[in-house]
Amino acid sequence: MAAAISPLAPARFPDMPPVAGVKLATAAAGIRYGGRTDVLLALFEQGTSVAGVFTRSKCPSAPVDWCRAHLKGGAARALVVNSGNANAFTGKSGRAATRLTADIAARAAGCKPSDVFLASTGVIGEPLDATKFGAVMDQLVAGAAPGAWQTAAEAIMTTDTFPKGAAAMARFGAVPITVCGIAKGAGMIAPDMATLLSFVFTDAPISPRVLQSLLKQGVADSFNAVTIDGDTSTSDTLLAFATGAAAARGVSKIATVSDPRLPALRKAFDAVLANLAEQVARDGEGARKLVEIIVEGAVSKSSARKIALSIANSPLVKTAIAGEDANWGRVVMAVGKAGERADRDRLSIWFGGIRVAHRGERDPSYDEAAVSATMKKPEITLKVALGLGRGRDRVLTCDLTKEYVAINGDYRS
Amino acid sequence: MAAAISPLAPARFPDMPPVAGVKLATAAAGIRYGGRTDVLLALFEQGTSVAGVFTRSKCPSAPVDWCRAHLKGGAARALVVNSGNANAFTGKSGRAATRLTADIAARAAGCKPSDVFLASTGVIGEPLDATKFGAVMDQLVAGAAPGAWQTAAEAIMTTDTFPKGAAAMARFGAVPITVCGIAKGAGMIAPDMATLLSFVFTDAPISPRVLQSLLKQGVADSFNAVTIDGDTSTSDTLLAFATGAAAARGVSKIATVSDPRLPALRKAFDAVLANLAEQVARDGEGARKLVEIIVEGAVSKSSARKIALSIANSPLVKTAIAGEDANWGRVVMAVGKAGERADRDRLSIWFGGIRVAHRGERDPSYDEAAVSATMKKPEITLKVALGLGRGRDRVLTCDLTKEYVAINGDYRS
Repeated sequence: MAAAISPLAPARFPDMPPVAGVKLATAAAGIRYGGRTDVLLALFEQGTSVAGVFTRSKCPSAPVDWCRAHLKGGAARALVVNSGNANAFTGKSGRAATRLTADIAARAAGCKPSDVFLASTGVIGEPLDATKFGAVMDQLVAGAAPGAWQTAAEAIMTTDTFPKGAAAMARFGAVPITVCGIAKGAGMIAPDMATLLSFVFTDAPISPRVLQSLLKQGVADSFNAVTIDGDTSTSDTLLAFATGAAAARGVSKIATVSDPRLPALRKAFDAVLANLAEQVARDGEGARKLVEIIVEGAVSKSSARKIALSIANSPLVKTAIAGEDANWGRVVMAVGKAGERADRDRLSIWFGGIRVAHRGERDPSYDEAAVSATMKKPEITLKVALGLGRGRDRVLTCDLTKEYVAINGDYRS
Repeated sequence: MAAAISPLAPARFPDMPPVAGVKLATAAAGIRYGGRTDVLLALFEQGTSVAGVFTRSKCPSAPVDWCRAHLKGGAARALVVNSGNANAFTGKSGRAATRLTADIAARAAGCKPSDVFLASTGVIGEPLDATKFGAVMDQLVAGAAPGAWQTAAEAIMTTDTFPKGAAAMARFGAVPITVCGIAKGAGMIAPDMATLLSFVFTDAPISPRVLQSLLKQGVADSFNAVTIDGDTSTSDTLLAFATGAAAARGVSKIATVSDPRLPALRKAFDAVLANLAEQVARDGEGARKLVEIIVEGAVSKSSARKIALSIANSPLVKTAIAGEDANWGRVVMAVGKAGERADRDRLSIWFGGIRVAHRGERDPSYDEAAVSATMKKPEITLKVALGLGRGRDRVLTCDLTKEYVAINGDYRS
């Protein structure tokens, strides 16, 4: 399926500097697609720390199991990502395929298999022929070079309509620290193919434990605050790799969460994660509108999050936005069904800054024409004030269009 | 919007006998629709018991508040239902409208306002002009007659494409007891209009407390086991009225849940609720397939219910079924995201009786052509066996089609 590029896509792939200690290569291994790259290899210098967060699915893919098992070592030398086959729900053969892939990469890269991290995205339930990695691995290792972010991002795409990358800088005194990331993800599985994968790379010297805390906090308001359809892949994987190459420029290791340099690094890290997460929402399957949902006045941040996700995942809210209809009645419905504390008679709702409902009733003063104009924009903010407390949160989503149904329902020919 | 009748609709409205002690009338009050009835009045004999279950929304409509407040009296003399306006999120004017409606009906029917029950379905957030009931109430009371179930079911329709009714009989010794019900509901709110309303009527003499227990248990595996889009109306209302008219034929009152006649009545009651709930699924907005989801081998019934609802509400599962694709990978995804105990390597999945996945892997023996033929049918059963325990449950849903998006997104012209 050659889908048109999302109308919400950024104008171009960003400029992204190399990250010292990271080399990248891609190849066409013919896993499922023809005429395109489908394998990404990243090689890391000795001493690279790794951290990861994964799908909460109770039925995770074999590569997710592999990464979880090897994360506790905290060290990484290679990352192998393939698109076209998720190696999920593949039983023993799936476990064997992860092992074989790690062995192939370890041999070529000169490291232990346990220092190889893996991610797969694509069809569920079909055996992954890992010998295909063997056919391209030497070529990948030989060709690995710094900084080819766009080709890396392209190799991991499935139903994505554009490659996703983001970069940010931090400064430790006079020394610049680089954070670069790539991501893929469109629907959550669909059409048999999506999944959220993201990989972030930095040259900061940082212990695996502190890197893990950075990642765990950073994901909460970025990838965990994005929903396309409420469906959760078996394979969602976010890995962070810190090469520590900046140590050569006199930067000492960040080994505790109280390190005074951590806030600067966190800021860069969070910016990259937030940017990538927004790009995922912009590439939601069939999306025509990027929708920011803000909930404030809830009894807590977590309550605000649950209400925001209830709105963001409501098919009726999403179809209304696709129809450019400021249907606040459906927003009331979605607030009500969230199961969180809410008081109908204190509820106010805004579309694009225009208050349409106030304290439990239609706002008598709102201008229908102004709201209609707002709803025609490609980016829409929907705000709900509950009037109960100080809990606030924000999630990103997209509209639900006939194209979503077509992408996910029409593809069998 | 004059939608075509659902292809899953029953061939015709069922034959339904009158219920002694219940009189029905309908009128066209011009609440929103032109050229059709939009008000239903039911009048009950003195001594009628009432029970009710309502939406779990934290933002319920004014009529839901009204019914909850008056249910504790346990007695009912009249029911007024309107379609076209939900009287939800209408603040003080909504409360005043419920009060005025009850006053109008009480005066005409010669009873207390607190013995009048109310339900409204239609647009959210628009004030309901209850004086319109005044203009038709005398005519309604004068014309009320037993047994006009189909016209009653038609008056409460919004986006429904067919009227929904069901009847069943029980026997207390030689005395036949009648249970009749009507329902409406299509999407959960949409297009601004749906909501699940259902009213069940019996001539059994039964105390309000026992009637309530009958209703509460009956709803669990009927209306609470149906989902169209996972969205929950502010107005969902299920009321049961027991006139006790069978007492004139020598039937004594059922006053305890241990009454030996209760199982027979429960059977009839449950049959009516299950039949109506299935009709709601058959009229899901844009539905082309009725989908039964069975989960077995879960650690408990409630765990099986959560997993079944996770599958039933997954946009990716629903679009795959619309595309006639036995996409069991998406079923694995939906099982995994439910958050309930599941073991990928024990999971088996069937479509229409054909096992497509077995113990965590694709079933190597399944016949693709046979599965394709199954998926083309209008009624599809999807079964998941978890292999963990004895918990089993069943829910009904429908597919997610482009028509659903059109109905809910295209209607603003």
